[in-house]
Amino acid sequence: MHTVRSLAELVGGTVAGHGAGTVVTGINDLRSAQPDQVSFLGNAKYEPQARESRAAAILVRLEDAERFSFTRIVVKSPSAAFAKIAGFFAPPPIRDEPGIHRAAIVAPDALIGEGISVGPHAVISAGVRLGSRVVIGANSFIGEGTTIGDETRIYPLVTVRERCVIGARVIIHSGAVIGADGFGYDFDPAQGRHVKIVHTGFVQIDDDVEIGSNTTVDRGRFGRTHIGQGAKIDNLVMIAHNVTIGAHSIVVAQTGISGSTSLGKCVTLAGQVGLAGHLTVGDKATVTAQSGINKDVPAGAIIAGRHAMPLRESLKMEALMRRLPELVERLKALEDKVKSLE
Amino acid sequence: MHTVRSLAELVGGTVAGHGAGTVVTGINDLRSAQPDQVSFLGNAKYEPQARESRAAAILVRLEDAERFSFTRIVVKSPSAAFAKIAGFFAPPPIRDEPGIHRAAIVAPDALIGEGISVGPHAVISAGVRLGSRVVIGANSFIGEGTTIGDETRIYPLVTVRERCVIGARVIIHSGAVIGADGFGYDFDPAQGRHVKIVHTGFVQIDDDVEIGSNTTVDRGRFGRTHIGQGAKIDNLVMIAHNVTIGAHSIVVAQTGISGSTSLGKCVTLAGQVGLAGHLTVGDKATVTAQSGINKDVPAGAIIAGRHAMPLRESLKMEALMRRLPELVERLKALEDKVKSLE
Amino acid sequence: MHTVRSLAELVGGTVAGHGAGTVVTGINDLRSAQPDQVSFLGNAKYEPQARESRAAAILVRLEDAERFSFTRIVVKSPSAAFAKIAGFFAPPPIRDEPGIHRAAIVAPDALIGEGISVGPHAVISAGVRLGSRVVIGANSFIGEGTTIGDETRIYPLVTVRERCVIGARVIIHSGAVIGADGFGYDFDPAQGRHVKIVHTGFVQIDDDVEIGSNTTVDRGRFGRTHIGQGAKIDNLVMIAHNVTIGAHSIVVAQTGISGSTSLGKCVTLAGQVGLAGHLTVGDKATVTAQSGINKDVPAGAIIAGRHAMPLRESLKMEALMRRLPELVERLKALEDKVKSLE
Repeated sequence: MHTVRSLAELVGGTVAGHGAGTVVTGINDLRSAQPDQVSFLGNAKYEPQARESRAAAILVRLEDAERFSFTRIVVKSPSAAFAKIAGFFAPPPIRDEPGIHRAAIVAPDALIGEGISVGPHAVISAGVRLGSRVVIGANSFIGEGTTIGDETRIYPLVTVRERCVIGARVIIHSGAVIGADGFGYDFDPAQGRHVKIVHTGFVQIDDDVEIGSNTTVDRGRFGRTHIGQGAKIDNLVMIAHNVTIGAHSIVVAQTGISGSTSLGKCVTLAGQVGLAGHLTVGDKATVTAQSGINKDVPAGAIIAGRHAMPLRESLKMEALMRRLPELVERLKALEDKVKSLE
Repeated sequence: MHTVRSLAELVGGTVAGHGAGTVVTGINDLRSAQPDQVSFLGNAKYEPQARESRAAAILVRLEDAERFSFTRIVVKSPSAAFAKIAGFFAPPPIRDEPGIHRAAIVAPDALIGEGISVGPHAVISAGVRLGSRVVIGANSFIGEGTTIGDETRIYPLVTVRERCVIGARVIIHSGAVIGADGFGYDFDPAQGRHVKIVHTGFVQIDDDVEIGSNTTVDRGRFGRTHIGQGAKIDNLVMIAHNVTIGAHSIVVAQTGISGSTSLGKCVTLAGQVGLAGHLTVGDKATVTAQSGINKDVPAGAIIAGRHAMPLRESLKMEALMRRLPELVERLKALEDKVKSLE
Repeated sequence: MHTVRSLAELVGGTVAGHGAGTVVTGINDLRSAQPDQVSFLGNAKYEPQARESRAAAILVRLEDAERFSFTRIVVKSPSAAFAKIAGFFAPPPIRDEPGIHRAAIVAPDALIGEGISVGPHAVISAGVRLGSRVVIGANSFIGEGTTIGDETRIYPLVTVRERCVIGARVIIHSGAVIGADGFGYDFDPAQGRHVKIVHTGFVQIDDDVEIGSNTTVDRGRFGRTHIGQGAKIDNLVMIAHNVTIGAHSIVVAQTGISGSTSLGKCVTLAGQVGLAGHLTVGDKATVTAQSGINKDVPAGAIIAGRHAMPLRESLKMEALMRRLPELVERLKALEDKVKSLE
């Protein structure tokens, strides 16, 4: 049984306000929290909700501790502490069935590590190597000669095509497609048709990468499409052939990266961004949501908008665009004055 | 056997023009219709096609009845009447095989309602509850502890992860992924890497919702991601963790909604829209195609464009932008005049 | 064993510079190439990389032959020649297991051509017809009454719904969904809810079409959604009900085409484009990346930007927008001068 006080101790925080002894049976968001649940304030925007919340206690930052009167657990990072508390109340994780399900198909020559779990109707093709404690979800397909490192988790209904190289502790969510052919054709004017360029490369995904649902990562034309260590890719992202994504980069949902573009380390691409092909994006650069990028981005730059300008310039231009009606009025007034002066 | 006259009677309409006795064997669009097929005029844009159509008869609105000379079936709503007629000529619907296919895997403790159909290679995990007349398509995966209400239809190759709550008469199309982890990390500067935030919540989908192909709905970090009754979600939409979509809202293809954003009832998001996180969109608001929204939208507002302005303002600004060349000319002329005055 | 000289002969090129006898064991990109690998220069942007490459030889165009001193294989099209050479060094293609896998489900009345390959857990429904040498990947679903032409390849985890018509030599990549219901509802004000419009049509895909991973092609409301011969569709594209795509058109990733829009032949839609419904795009028209199109596009036009202007006009307007700060300065200066004149 947990109380506000025992939870505060478990996350290295202190209780401020009344009610340290209140029994806590779960967690919830500020609006939905009941008197036996704790919540957290992670964003100043939600202060009004925090003040009206019925929660037993609310996790707040040290610097905010004195501004509220509700019962609070004061910590350095409310988000991290809340994640820890969430763990105490979380439903037990799904147990992976040990071994190979009788309805899975595993090629006789596949090399299988210890402690693996292969779900029903999964298909493990010839020459595949699975490390220790790998989990392959139901109905997933692993193509010929692909290798998968220790403790990697492939959720149900994932497709990994042939000869891909996937590291350790990688997570690939349902519906993702890794290693399909890149989109490349030579137009044959004589025949008036597009001739397919064979893509004989592969996809390399390094350790600790996570790939979201229904994201597609195409194989290299030759050589590899490469996602570096610790990079995190959201849902419905398109990563074209021969793209390189540097270590610890973040690519948010529905972004598309065209062929042979190379991202440095710790790059952030927000949602619905589009990058043209054959570009270089420097380390720690950030591209804001829905931007369109068609030239190289320097390291550390913050780029915004359809016209891929530095964020400051983009905001300034946007402000000017909003002033267009006023500018037209001023122009008209000037014309009248000049006319009367003439 | 149907004739123009019998069809008119069946949809509560009247025949105008010659040819009420013509035998009708099917339906088609205006351009492709043969002399034994009926078509409909649903959009003024297609009037020239209607005038040139070879159709046996064309369904038109009451107010348009006198403007044409071709054979017409006059009704209140040509679209609705045509849908009804389409039903008479439609191929018989696909029969769902009753019962559980021998090649499906169903956990022994799953609770299965009457009259269900579970396709080959479907996987029904432990603790799942399926209502009456539920259809689970081939190769679909239903995770541990998920509940699905009466008459819900899951098409082939759908993934529903653990502990989701899906209502009655819901339709989920192929390739959709419901309940994958949300995209959330805490950056650990000491280790220089992103630490995964565990998502222990779930997805709740209320009655009569429809979800398109390859759409992804992530589970809540804690608590739920919630799609309200009768909402309709198109293909390739991204719905992030802890989003709320109000009842009877419409979300068109390739739109993305970031974490914790909340839509009211009867909201319409057109295609390829992007919404930032932690926003509130009021009841009956409309956002036009490809808009980018980064602040709250009031109820009933019509918002347009990258800069999320009211539609009127957006159209005005766009018109001014198109006038920029003219404005520059006027500015230049003024400068010359003022110079000559000085 | 290959040498620079033997490869040059095989692609109809000539060797310039030293080292025609160097043994070649593989291919690589300019930056990664080792002294026993050949590479190619396909884009002037990479000239510095070419000059620094360690490759045994680099394929260059006839017109560039004299500008470099490294060992080069001079050809008409470096890209095409390189593709041919890539073939010599490519890993052997994956062998399709002949016949129907014991874990596949094939309806007794399906008509199956000679030399087919049906993977494990594939489902071939009643009334399906598969041509000769068709390949159906693992865990794919082919719906009732669908026909598939000779030598068509369906990769793993593809969904093709009922009554679709797919031609010969078509390629459909993993995760694609062909023939799901279109997104159409009639709003019933009395009940305050959206009533589903039944989609009784189908999808027709002509010979030599390629469809990317996780792309969705919805069936017609009635009649067909039609993708013409030789058209190439990239990943994560949305093709709505009753769309027509003309022969040999190219649709790049994450583009969306709304219902009943019709593309002519040899149209190019770049990535992340959005087209409204009921539009006509003329033959050989091009739409640049991220554009939004809401009116018809004439044949041969090049259209750009959110406001769907001809490319020239769009570039001009963009340049003027970037000059807005300067224009405001000039306006301000004029106002001051006129004031002093008054």
